[in-house]
Amino acid sequence: MNILVTLNSNYLKPLKVMLTSLFLNNDDESFTIYLMHSSIKQEEIQRIDQFINEHGSQLVEVHVDDTHFNEAPVLLHYTKEMYYRLLACKFLPPRLDRILYLDPDILVINSVRQLYQLDMEEYLFAAAYHDKISVKEINKLRLTPYEIDVYYNSGVLLMNLELQRQTIDEKIIYEFVEKNRARLIMPDQDILNALYAKKIKALDETIYNYDARFYNYYKLKSSGKCDMDFIIHNTVFLHFCGKKKPWQKNYSGKFHSLYKHYEKLALG
Amino acid sequence: MNILVTLNSNYLKPLKVMLTSLFLNNDDESFTIYLMHSSIKQEEIQRIDQFINEHGSQLVEVHVDDTHFNEAPVLLHYTKEMYYRLLACKFLPPRLDRILYLDPDILVINSVRQLYQLDMEEYLFAAAYHDKISVKEINKLRLTPYEIDVYYNSGVLLMNLELQRQTIDEKIIYEFVEKNRARLIMPDQDILNALYAKKIKALDETIYNYDARFYNYYKLKSSGKCDMDFIIHNTVFLHFCGKKKPWQKNYSGKFHSLYKHYEKLALG
Repeated sequence: MNILVTLNSNYLKPLKVMLTSLFLNNDDESFTIYLMHSSIKQEEIQRIDQFINEHGSQLVEVHVDDTHFNEAPVLLHYTKEMYYRLLACKFLPPRLDRILYLDPDILVINSVRQLYQLDMEEYLFAAAYHDKISVKEINKLRLTPYEIDVYYNSGVLLMNLELQRQTIDEKIIYEFVEKNRARLIMPDQDILNALYAKKIKALDETIYNYDARFYNYYKLKSSGKCDMDFIIHNTVFLHFCGKKKPWQKNYSGKFHSLYKHYEKLALG
Repeated sequence: MNILVTLNSNYLKPLKVMLTSLFLNNDDESFTIYLMHSSIKQEEIQRIDQFINEHGSQLVEVHVDDTHFNEAPVLLHYTKEMYYRLLACKFLPPRLDRILYLDPDILVINSVRQLYQLDMEEYLFAAAYHDKISVKEINKLRLTPYEIDVYYNSGVLLMNLELQRQTIDEKIIYEFVEKNRARLIMPDQDILNALYAKKIKALDETIYNYDARFYNYYKLKSSGKCDMDFIIHNTVFLHFCGKKKPWQKNYSGKFHSLYKHYEKLALG
């Protein structure tokens, strides 16, 4: 199975935690991890390569150098890395037909096999949207002219690479960014939603992109079905969305102890 | 290493979870699990035996039949099983010099080696007391004539079996129970404290008997030192004290997700 991650040195520790949880809960699978980056040092790459090999999987480095994204507009506080997951199809080997992108602030706590084998039909991506009404309303307002019904989270993206290569045009993306500079808050996610929402196959967020901040909300909304037992047995991706991260001091949350457990397994 | 558990059929599932956490976090050790009981069915014993064997350890059944505890007084709501951990030294093979008793509502999340090798000097037990002032005051009042300074928790007990065989007298225990019938709330724990408090070597509760209900209290009391990171790396026994148990519906607590994680590993 192909996994895509795009990050810089600051996220190498969370990456190892995420990968540890992926490997431990998918121990009958072998993964090829594509690491798309521009600035990670070779000795760090070697360490992560060794780590992945020890778990029976392999690393493929996708180095993005200065010759790329020359025409891409940049935004205050954001680097060109914001384009990586949207344009990954242009950088990955042409023989790859699909890949699963994962944010590093995720724990993978069950098998990814069923998602990976999803029939993607004519969709470019599969992703989950977070259905908390307040979030939805805010995002709808902000991107109003683009008429989106739901706001997909870009932390888990199953990519139909074959179709993406034929469809995704960097010029259209750059144009959109130029026009909406002031309005973009989470640039890659905003672009994904504004330009491709109708080409995204919707996944169940409680299974494939569970927002770890909202335990009580999910439980209430599901009339109690989505409780801790359900999550531990069914949720595949537990996503630590938001500013407060479980590897930081003074984090607090329902999945803190579980995160630290995997962190210890990953980092000692 | 010798581990003692005393329980009935209702606790076989939590027992498997506790043992799974013990085995996974002590994978270089081999254990002999002494299961002291009076009512567990042979087919259940066989299943637990197989489970323990699969993890490279072994089970020894210590069956207590009707001929025992004839003179022991019983209390409303409590059975003779309340005496098991206090009188285990009389039932275990005479060659055993020490054993570690563990409640089934515990997760073992780090190595038990250092505790097991503790110098017991002339103490009968090693145990931790829970230092929350309110609890302490209440217990002191209740058992006042016995002059105890602290109230030890009986969920984790390292036992000096050799010395116990010479010292512990069931008649004194039975006498104490007769005299204090009305006053006993948690009988075995009350007896332990009233009769043997001065023969108990005190252990650090944050390491050896962390009360999972009181995360914020421990963190505050330690000026932040005893945070989630510290616990995951240092605490050996995470004890789910109190009425609400993490295997029950609608439990809620800081270690809920971690418990359910081990529960899935143990029970599927």
